[in-house]
Amino acid sequence: MAERSATLEKTIETLTEQKKYPALRDILVTMNPADVAALFDALEERTLPLLFRLLPKDIAAETFVEMEPDSQELLIRGFSDSELKEVVDELYVDDAVDLVEEMPANVVKRILRQADAETRKLINDILKYPEDSAGSIMTTEFIELRPSMTVADAVKNIRRNGLDSETINTCYVVDDGKHLLGTISIRDLILAEEDAKLSDIMEENVISVSTMTDQEEATAMISRYNFTVLPVVDGEGRLVGIITVDDAMDVMEDEATEDIEIMGGVTPVDKPYLKTGAFQFWRARIPWLLLLMIGATFTGMILNHYENALARITALTLFIPMLMDTGGNSGSQSSVTVIRALSLGDLEFKDILSVIWKEIRVAFLCGVSLACVAFLKIMLIDHLLLQNDDVTVLVALTVCVTMVLVVLVAKLIGCTLPMLAEKLGFDPAVMSSPFITTIVDALSLLIYFAIASAVLGA
Amino acid sequence: MAERSATLEKTIETLTEQKKYPALRDILVTMNPADVAALFDALEERTLPLLFRLLPKDIAAETFVEMEPDSQELLIRGFSDSELKEVVDELYVDDAVDLVEEMPANVVKRILRQADAETRKLINDILKYPEDSAGSIMTTEFIELRPSMTVADAVKNIRRNGLDSETINTCYVVDDGKHLLGTISIRDLILAEEDAKLSDIMEENVISVSTMTDQEEATAMISRYNFTVLPVVDGEGRLVGIITVDDAMDVMEDEATEDIEIMGGVTPVDKPYLKTGAFQFWRARIPWLLLLMIGATFTGMILNHYENALARITALTLFIPMLMDTGGNSGSQSSVTVIRALSLGDLEFKDILSVIWKEIRVAFLCGVSLACVAFLKIMLIDHLLLQNDDVTVLVALTVCVTMVLVVLVAKLIGCTLPMLAEKLGFDPAVMSSPFITTIVDALSLLIYFAIASAVLGA
Repeated sequence: MAERSATLEKTIETLTEQKKYPALRDILVTMNPADVAALFDALEERTLPLLFRLLPKDIAAETFVEMEPDSQELLIRGFSDSELKEVVDELYVDDAVDLVEEMPANVVKRILRQADAETRKLINDILKYPEDSAGSIMTTEFIELRPSMTVADAVKNIRRNGLDSETINTCYVVDDGKHLLGTISIRDLILAEEDAKLSDIMEENVISVSTMTDQEEATAMISRYNFTVLPVVDGEGRLVGIITVDDAMDVMEDEATEDIEIMGGVTPVDKPYLKTGAFQFWRARIPWLLLLMIGATFTGMILNHYENALARITALTLFIPMLMDTGGNSGSQSSVTVIRALSLGDLEFKDILSVIWKEIRVAFLCGVSLACVAFLKIMLIDHLLLQNDDVTVLVALTVCVTMVLVVLVAKLIGCTLPMLAEKLGFDPAVMSSPFITTIVDALSLLIYFAIASAVLGA
Repeated sequence: MAERSATLEKTIETLTEQKKYPALRDILVTMNPADVAALFDALEERTLPLLFRLLPKDIAAETFVEMEPDSQELLIRGFSDSELKEVVDELYVDDAVDLVEEMPANVVKRILRQADAETRKLINDILKYPEDSAGSIMTTEFIELRPSMTVADAVKNIRRNGLDSETINTCYVVDDGKHLLGTISIRDLILAEEDAKLSDIMEENVISVSTMTDQEEATAMISRYNFTVLPVVDGEGRLVGIITVDDAMDVMEDEATEDIEIMGGVTPVDKPYLKTGAFQFWRARIPWLLLLMIGATFTGMILNHYENALARITALTLFIPMLMDTGGNSGSQSSVTVIRALSLGDLEFKDILSVIWKEIRVAFLCGVSLACVAFLKIMLIDHLLLQNDDVTVLVALTVCVTMVLVVLVAKLIGCTLPMLAEKLGFDPAVMSSPFITTIVDALSLLIYFAIASAVLGA
């Protein structure tokens, strides 16, 4: 796929140099707008406006929507007012809102000036909804029908308004006050008798979200109910917009990326890797590194405190990384599993006791298995093979008992911290590997030295 | 939401005890099948079949599909042959395949016996496709039209076959040999003139996948092109199935979960947290823990090797966890960012040099910032406040120079290993926090002691 578009890029380049515009146009119109956009994003500044102007009006708008903000800005700055108006007129309101959110203020002014009064009002209304709310990602172009209409009326209405609405797969039946009464799918319309009344055939148990619902919840509902559209109503139950499944997929992907990045100890950056500057990455990463570095100094202080014990029984040092790492990894495993289950809705705070009980059993199984392997490894390799006389059976036992306890503590912390974070209204993803590791490191050492002093008198 | 269904559960329980079946039925039919399924999954074994039998046939099948495999199996075991046939007849082929894949062999036999010959053949065909291929998740119920049909013919055809096909939003135009010629959306059909010929109005630049395409790639295409359906063709370009956007969303969610779990050092378990047994979790976690534990013993050997140096300059011990953790965290950040970019298609192996160059710059910025803060912290807190005389300016300098180098090495390893894994055909997610940390830990120590011996003669 990457190979193919590289060749295509070459062809387009050659044709552009030879000014073969009709041929170029023929190639571009056969392509999907998303692919044209990807191709355009890779073009030089000078070629982009030239090729963009070759596109027919409707394809131009679809392509424009799919392009990177940098390219969009470049194009807009080169557009005449009438060219800009043509593109803006073709955009769905949700796409226009996305554009306005991405562009710098002076470009936004120009865009809004070119939009007609109604569109401008709609854009401004949507901009008022909080970021990440259902209202902020909805679009306002949908088919509105009345309960008294017959199927034939409805089809006529759709023919009249269908071109301007983002989807006609589901149509909405509303009363005079715009209150949502029911939905009817295009499939039901096609399969119904022409003279049936909509009030008789519409689905009355409508599932909808409010404009203030979190976008992640709205997306999860689209996935859960296998919808292609989800209606959005205001505080009074009036239909104000719809969320389409393609936008829901984008939200889902963005949310997964955000979770993964936060779990990796990075503030999410909402740009592709290659478009993100080194300085931006620095800003996204340094706060976490600083915080965790400070956290790790406590571990250092613990280690330093037991300096004398380590100097006396030098073999103890040998197993510190193994115990600390195993603790960190055990904790990460539990936290990752719990964080994902929370974000999928498989777990809630009320399940915390069953989670703890499950993790205790898993920790016991894992701890004992690891301890057995560690014991064998220590006795066979360190003691017999490497003939390290400091590594006695008692040292091996100390390590193994510590191992079981460390895994237990790590898994308990790994499973409870994300659930507590969620309960307190924080993002549970924060409580993943890096934090868990830092906390478990310190605890592992304390457990190790406590047991060492009990068993070995260290 | 959880609150509401808890109350609903109570109501249903009470009504069941009082045998108020008509009322129960009235409640159930107003609910979305996905919600009914969630409710049923929480029912007792004895009540489930009772309530399931209250559902009308079509809702019963939709609810059945959304239930957990445990509940499905319970129901099937209680079904008479004719009841089973009724449910199986209502299932779309992709759902029937999912069911067959989840059930034990003797239940599968019963299901296949009740399916009609054609369905049985379709199920068996789909079962032959490799797991995770487009063929394995497609369904075979779609609307097939001919290029010579008029719009009126097409609508008539859809009315005849629409009820049995999973979606009518996009219809497919094929020739006599079933080769895919074009697509036409229901919207275009509704908006077109009745006597227009399909060959004139269909979209001829069809984007399709092969049955052997990876399901993740197929899903990414649905998202990229904002499709609600994607056609699947066989090796000869014959249309054999479609993938619908709701299934694509499920795949997307599963793939994100899989990535997240692998990145946390857990073999993915494809069951919800609370349904997974402790033993299953143990099996998913122990191999990684063992592998990483063995890896960490090398770090222990390095630490042990420099025992004498540590005994001479005791202050060095104080900073080991800080350096190791910061290294691990820096490496995790890079690996997480790169792994996600690879999985979203934002990065490819050919970008490796630009990635390395970017990470070097980010590492330099992060390393220097961390080193400055560490220097201040060491001199102000350890040296002045805690009056630790072992902590000299030279020790602080050793730590800070090490810090810069460790961050650099960690970020380089963190960004290159996932890209190499992808190039070699492994899942890049494996090369995340746990592995990177284990490798970076050992390297951090080697760097630390090398610099300490140069600066302090340790």
